[in-house]
Amino acid sequence: MQKIEHIGIAVKDIDAADLLYTNLLGVPPYKREIVESEKVVTSFFRVGASKIELLCSLDPNGVITKFVEKKGEGIHHIAYAVVDIEAEMKRMEADGFKLLNEKPKQGADNKLVCFIHPKTAGGVLVELCQERP
Amino acid sequence: MQKIEHIGIAVKDIDAADLLYTNLLGVPPYKREIVESEKVVTSFFRVGASKIELLCSLDPNGVITKFVEKKGEGIHHIAYAVVDIEAEMKRMEADGFKLLNEKPKQGADNKLVCFIHPKTAGGVLVELCQERP
Repeated sequence: MQKIEHIGIAVKDIDAADLLYTNLLGVPPYKREIVESEKVVTSFFRVGASKIELLCSLDPNGVITKFVEKKGEGIHHIAYAVVDIEAEMKRMEADGFKLLNEKPKQGADNKLVCFIHPKTAGGVLVELCQERP
Repeated sequence: MQKIEHIGIAVKDIDAADLLYTNLLGVPPYKREIVESEKVVTSFFRVGASKIELLCSLDPNGVITKFVEKKGEGIHHIAYAVVDIEAEMKRMEADGFKLLNEKPKQGADNKLVCFIHPKTAGGVLVELCQERP
């Protein structure tokens, strides 16, 4: 893995969370983006070479809604930057990690992404992400 | 905040977790360290400019034992690197964040640290850390 690309944090109210994280991190968000495929609105903050990605559900039955109902607001996933996502997916599958999508899919922030099941990754939802050319 | 210094991840078995994270991250841990004050053994991996810190309890009544019993293995905290921890603590307290220690204390990996209560930080246990001179 090249670096921690971002930490995804589930929030209930994107405007309130933007204010809180602006205060916490000392910088405002640099981007807000709707990810249609995941039915979330995201907000991004830069912290060094990494990002904080706030995730707020747009779907009352969506995974982020369910996450927040079950666990409350908080850390949802860790995303690692990789150079070649398909090669990394093959390697990880061979090493016993369960991939949650068979092929890389479009994520937020112009990335190709793949998620790894937390049951095979020490209780942590892991995202691999590769910058799109 | 300068960067994500590390992500702290609670684990049940430090040896098993070392193997899992070596596989996941593609690098072995560079250090194992007992933090007497917290009664944990920690293991560190480099990922870009950040680290993954595995935390395993040495105390059956310790906070990491309780965390794992309640929530299972998984992400415990996010640590941000700061230049001047005392100034940052003052600023954050004035901004309404609840500090969990009044003065910086000795953390793992030669750091001065302060924790922020998750109730005031969007459900995330936040650690500020400053490299010791």
